[in-house]
Amino acid sequence: MKARDLFRVPDKFTLREEDAARQPLGDGSKSGDKERTDQVLERVSDLQTILYAQRKHKVLLVLQGMDTSGKDGAVRSLYSGINPVGLRATSFKAPTPLEAGYDYLWRVHQHVPAKGEIAIFNRSHYEEVLITRVLKQIGSKECQRRYGHIRDFERMLAETGTTIVKVFLHISKDEQRKRLQARLEDPKKQWKFDQSDIDQRKKWRTFQDAYEDAILATDADHAPWFIVPADSKPHRDLAIATLLLETLQDLRLRWPPPDAKLAELKIR
Amino acid sequence: MKARDLFRVPDKFTLREEDAARQPLGDGSKSGDKERTDQVLERVSDLQTILYAQRKHKVLLVLQGMDTSGKDGAVRSLYSGINPVGLRATSFKAPTPLEAGYDYLWRVHQHVPAKGEIAIFNRSHYEEVLITRVLKQIGSKECQRRYGHIRDFERMLAETGTTIVKVFLHISKDEQRKRLQARLEDPKKQWKFDQSDIDQRKKWRTFQDAYEDAILATDADHAPWFIVPADSKPHRDLAIATLLLETLQDLRLRWPPPDAKLAELKIR
Repeated sequence: MKARDLFRVPDKFTLREEDAARQPLGDGSKSGDKERTDQVLERVSDLQTILYAQRKHKVLLVLQGMDTSGKDGAVRSLYSGINPVGLRATSFKAPTPLEAGYDYLWRVHQHVPAKGEIAIFNRSHYEEVLITRVLKQIGSKECQRRYGHIRDFERMLAETGTTIVKVFLHISKDEQRKRLQARLEDPKKQWKFDQSDIDQRKKWRTFQDAYEDAILATDADHAPWFIVPADSKPHRDLAIATLLLETLQDLRLRWPPPDAKLAELKIR
Repeated sequence: MKARDLFRVPDKFTLREEDAARQPLGDGSKSGDKERTDQVLERVSDLQTILYAQRKHKVLLVLQGMDTSGKDGAVRSLYSGINPVGLRATSFKAPTPLEAGYDYLWRVHQHVPAKGEIAIFNRSHYEEVLITRVLKQIGSKECQRRYGHIRDFERMLAETGTTIVKVFLHISKDEQRKRLQARLEDPKKQWKFDQSDIDQRKKWRTFQDAYEDAILATDADHAPWFIVPADSKPHRDLAIATLLLETLQDLRLRWPPPDAKLAELKIR
């Protein structure tokens, strides 16, 4: 079964019923998952070179998930195997005053992939219907309006040649507890800790509901959502790499036709 | 001897006398160089995490060199070992019409590192005193004026907390011939070939002179140039990784002081 089918969000679903620990790929061992991820990324890397050479398709990978769900780790894993020429990751933090002065798609639009590129969004425009809603900065009506903007924006991107893959990294509340605790106790991780991590954890259920709602409202065949179980880091990386591989395979990429005359040229 | 001393450009030098094949680091074997590069990058990666956590220093690595000298390869090597959070590579191509409408430092300034970041420039503002000069788009007087702009710009960056490392990847004319020929004959590399590669190769000597001149005019202790021999790819990667490691070591990076109260907090 393809990863695209294994992880695609069903028509009806609740995050409560999604198992964050399931590992449908790999053999259940960390070392096995890591080895397989390396193999998958090698194939991704080969296809990405063609993508870059052909300069026809654009690929956008959106990563969303609760704190500690492993967005940074997933980006790092992808960079370990893929040529950074033609790969571009953007982390969207809380908007700066400058950014907040514009509509909320403005800063995101600047970082969409160009022809031949794979762009990774580490958080994205979805923050504007998640944290803003949980903190009651926007109400239900405004949220629905934004779903509309997001759907329109993503359709435009798809119709102008962008293949969109949206991933929700799904961790359990207990796994998040362990990871936050480790941040606090390890002096080399404590700097990552932020009081807002705890505030947001207290609103766990409200966040999960906001995610469910946003995912269901914006899932589409041209902009599909995938729920990737993320309690296991190696399996999470394997799942994302495999989703990306299948996406590139479906594009049926081709080398630009070689020029026979050039092949005969002698450099002096 | 430190790599910073081994490769630092001397007060008087000519590229003609610089050996592009010398390998002062490592044991002379490709596998040995690769292994050592991995080890060096592991230490770079540890220090970069502190750099990122501390958010105090900024590091700018400028890569320049003739076609096929291995700028892309060097960037890829760095990304293979360093966490992409806090690492940002920008490739500067020929200016777009939009970019050309501004002064030539405008597009470059947008990509300098912020606090805690390492930025890599794959080509840079130096193109504006190299190719432009070789193609006689600017004369000697304008070129001198631009050296002044560049010196001022880099001094400002250094005085506002940026550690600058400028690397010239030095390949021999014969090694370039081999690499261009390989591009032509391999269908998987031919797309990289551009007629301008040959035009520029014909002006090899003029380019080398322009590099020499620009390097000597802009070398400074706060913005030093290093001549890295680049005929061997693994040794090139080892040399750049080592330069970066020594740079980070000199910054005497420290973890942000841990908060004892936080360490006692229990997450529920």
